[in-house]
Amino acid sequence: MKIENIRSSDYDMIIGLLSEWWNGREVAAMLPRLFFTHFNNTSFIIKEKETIVGFIVGFISQTEKTKAYVHFIGVNPVMRNRKIGKLLYTSFFQAVRTLGVKEVLSVTSIDNKSSISFHQRVGFDIMANESLNDSGNPYYKDYDGPGQHRVLFKYNLENDVGVL
Amino acid sequence: MKIENIRSSDYDMIIGLLSEWWNGREVAAMLPRLFFTHFNNTSFIIKEKETIVGFIVGFISQTEKTKAYVHFIGVNPVMRNRKIGKLLYTSFFQAVRTLGVKEVLSVTSIDNKSSISFHQRVGFDIMANESLNDSGNPYYKDYDGPGQHRVLFKYNLENDVGVL
Repeated sequence: MKIENIRSSDYDMIIGLLSEWWNGREVAAMLPRLFFTHFNNTSFIIKEKETIVGFIVGFISQTEKTKAYVHFIGVNPVMRNRKIGKLLYTSFFQAVRTLGVKEVLSVTSIDNKSSISFHQRVGFDIMANESLNDSGNPYYKDYDGPGQHRVLFKYNLENDVGVL
Repeated sequence: MKIENIRSSDYDMIIGLLSEWWNGREVAAMLPRLFFTHFNNTSFIIKEKETIVGFIVGFISQTEKTKAYVHFIGVNPVMRNRKIGKLLYTSFFQAVRTLGVKEVLSVTSIDNKSSISFHQRVGFDIMANESLNDSGNPYYKDYDGPGQHRVLFKYNLENDVGVL
């Protein structure tokens, strides 16, 4: 397996895979090409020979340069349970730490239980709020628009002891 | 009218307006809150009293720091034909120029004729390609995913003589 910075040219292959990776769910609208063009130094792809194993797309906040945000992480379903997601996050954490980032943020849909538990396994904290989903996790109502409720995560890189 | 940097708190009001501004077209999925949180210093909103007149969301490329990208521009339909769009772009150009940007990029849907002519009036050049739409404008097939054809624009800030 080879991990490298993502390139704009990786987009065409990945965008055609997403619907299959997400069981037909339409996720391509969340991932316009801009994310593959303008954040190359903080986005990564893992390939094995010609197969795409997984990728992570994130960036450093322009508003607060000590914060980074992960917009999208995807793992090839045939490569699940091999800690690919953790490897992607580790690469992201290392890259943004050298750029001065102290906290990493991410969000996921309120009903995406596997993503919520994945982020918790990686070491993210769920951000507190009054609303709770049916698993008891706090969420933010209408966070990404009407009906688009989200669970918010943060990861403190300063407390990170490097055992991920 | 007052123009100011966009804030995360502007999101809730704007995201509820978009479907009305776009004649019922569902555009909220293109605009998750991250764009209102992490790019404040290069994103702007115009208000008149309590009414939102328009907004522009853009950022500086992390990959090439002399390039900036405009992701979204919206003008309240009751305020059309008052050069609000140009004012928003002028503010964006000024902000990114002081941050070292030399070229501004944007894309629009192949069938969004009013956006294409607006970008040309602002002074953007359409980027050349072999495929031509039915107005004769070059476009990039499947640019933002399968069936998502886009016209690409660039604006050279170095040739900008400040008459916008």
